[in-house]
Amino acid sequence: MAISHLHSLQSVRVSFPCRPSVSNNYYHGRDNFTTKSSSLVYASTNNLDRDLHLQSKVETVLDSVKWDDRGLAVAIAQNVDTGAILMQGFANREAVATTVSSRKATFYSRSRSMLWTKGETSNNFINVHDIFLDCDRDSIIYLGKPDGPTCHTGSETCYYTPVFDLLENQQDKEDKLALTTLYSLESTIAQRKGELEVPESGKPSWTRRLLLDEKLLCSKIREEADELCRTLEDNEDKPRAASEMADVLYHAMVLLALKDVKMEEVLDILRRRFSQSGIEEKRSRNPQA
Amino acid sequence: MAISHLHSLQSVRVSFPCRPSVSNNYYHGRDNFTTKSSSLVYASTNNLDRDLHLQSKVETVLDSVKWDDRGLAVAIAQNVDTGAILMQGFANREAVATTVSSRKATFYSRSRSMLWTKGETSNNFINVHDIFLDCDRDSIIYLGKPDGPTCHTGSETCYYTPVFDLLENQQDKEDKLALTTLYSLESTIAQRKGELEVPESGKPSWTRRLLLDEKLLCSKIREEADELCRTLEDNEDKPRAASEMADVLYHAMVLLALKDVKMEEVLDILRRRFSQSGIEEKRSRNPQA
Repeated sequence: MAISHLHSLQSVRVSFPCRPSVSNNYYHGRDNFTTKSSSLVYASTNNLDRDLHLQSKVETVLDSVKWDDRGLAVAIAQNVDTGAILMQGFANREAVATTVSSRKATFYSRSRSMLWTKGETSNNFINVHDIFLDCDRDSIIYLGKPDGPTCHTGSETCYYTPVFDLLENQQDKEDKLALTTLYSLESTIAQRKGELEVPESGKPSWTRRLLLDEKLLCSKIREEADELCRTLEDNEDKPRAASEMADVLYHAMVLLALKDVKMEEVLDILRRRFSQSGIEEKRSRNPQA
Repeated sequence: MAISHLHSLQSVRVSFPCRPSVSNNYYHGRDNFTTKSSSLVYASTNNLDRDLHLQSKVETVLDSVKWDDRGLAVAIAQNVDTGAILMQGFANREAVATTVSSRKATFYSRSRSMLWTKGETSNNFINVHDIFLDCDRDSIIYLGKPDGPTCHTGSETCYYTPVFDLLENQQDKEDKLALTTLYSLESTIAQRKGELEVPESGKPSWTRRLLLDEKLLCSKIREEADELCRTLEDNEDKPRAASEMADVLYHAMVLLALKDVKMEEVLDILRRRFSQSGIEEKRSRNPQA
């Protein structure tokens, strides 16, 4: 898996202390990084060399970012498992350097003119697994795992105001998160599950029938898995394989809803199993991946 | 599914023509919308009323956005199926109004001081399914389906520069997209598939064994689907269900790799089946969802 686990970078924490920010004191220079924490006095020469080398590399990367006239770039925090865009803020050099060293998504607050680590008040940190720059080097993704809801309102993400619903006069409806396909489907199934107590007029939906009949659901999951296998065994075409996989996924997600398991939990397991460091660890136990 | 299909909004296309932009002429006022296209002369009074009503609603939504001192807000384009962040730009009032009416992700180019619809040169438009505002109303998600690679470099997204790899001296490696868990796993499996011709020293990985042995793969898919069902039938705990689902997903994705099918294609099918408009259409054929 593509997520980098750069354990050696943890040493940067010593060299990049999260300094208290000063109003309007954007971080542009590299000189501050030469002020070493006293803990480094005890470090070996090798460690010191490695730290200095890493500092220099971080500086080079920061130099390559096209900061705007305020010394800022857009920083987007994204859930590494679900892909949900959690929030968007701005970062200056110091915010990115702090994120690299602390692995907690850190921004520069334009209103308060200071560094701000998401979670420092709520404890809902965003644990950053990787950082990406865009082609223009003026936009940054913090790809990470949130400890809890990201929005100050308690919402999972800050994006819960759908424009087309507003235009359809549905602004009184509950907030609707910006969900991508898998999570929209999960949400639809959860909604059907929530409606099970309500008598349905007319023919019940297929999801409702599956939720109410575990025997039917399990027989469908086994049947769809078999049909997916047969697309390989019988050399069926690609659209057929995609369609059978859609059936497997949908029916399995109905089962997950009955078990109160979220797709995010499943993806968390897959990430741990297949992460770069995890591959070797897993191989030693069970040669998977 | 949560994706809104607001067919009536298509009429807004008539009233919101994509006007040529003038240098530094940010769009702030609402007066321009009173200049109606001549095609509306032929519209019925009802249509005219509906259009005016919609225009007024769009204006109200645009009024609620907190535009910065340049009349801009951050606009992030995200793939509705995979969740990949495709690109990030800025939007002014006119860019958002144009996106609402044309359903093509449209931005304001700060360097060229003009409106810019992604795809107008490359034909790789981003077809917008929904638009979300954040809690502060100064950041926008265009949730949509790209017609092709979004980045001007030909890359699927603009985010292909991983900071931790740069710091590890891996900048000479191929570009690495900012992939979330499911797509990192897909990429790992594809990599193993690409390496099949290369003789492997030592014990082959599990993925390699599955790719080379269709009988083993299919027997594992059927077995894992059965084990997932048994978590429900035998009332096993949640972590067990999540783990079995991870097994189903991983093994099924190895099959997809052999069939050259992308998860994005599977999700595209699910979105079409379960979209709000699709639910009713599908119900009339086959009561699913």
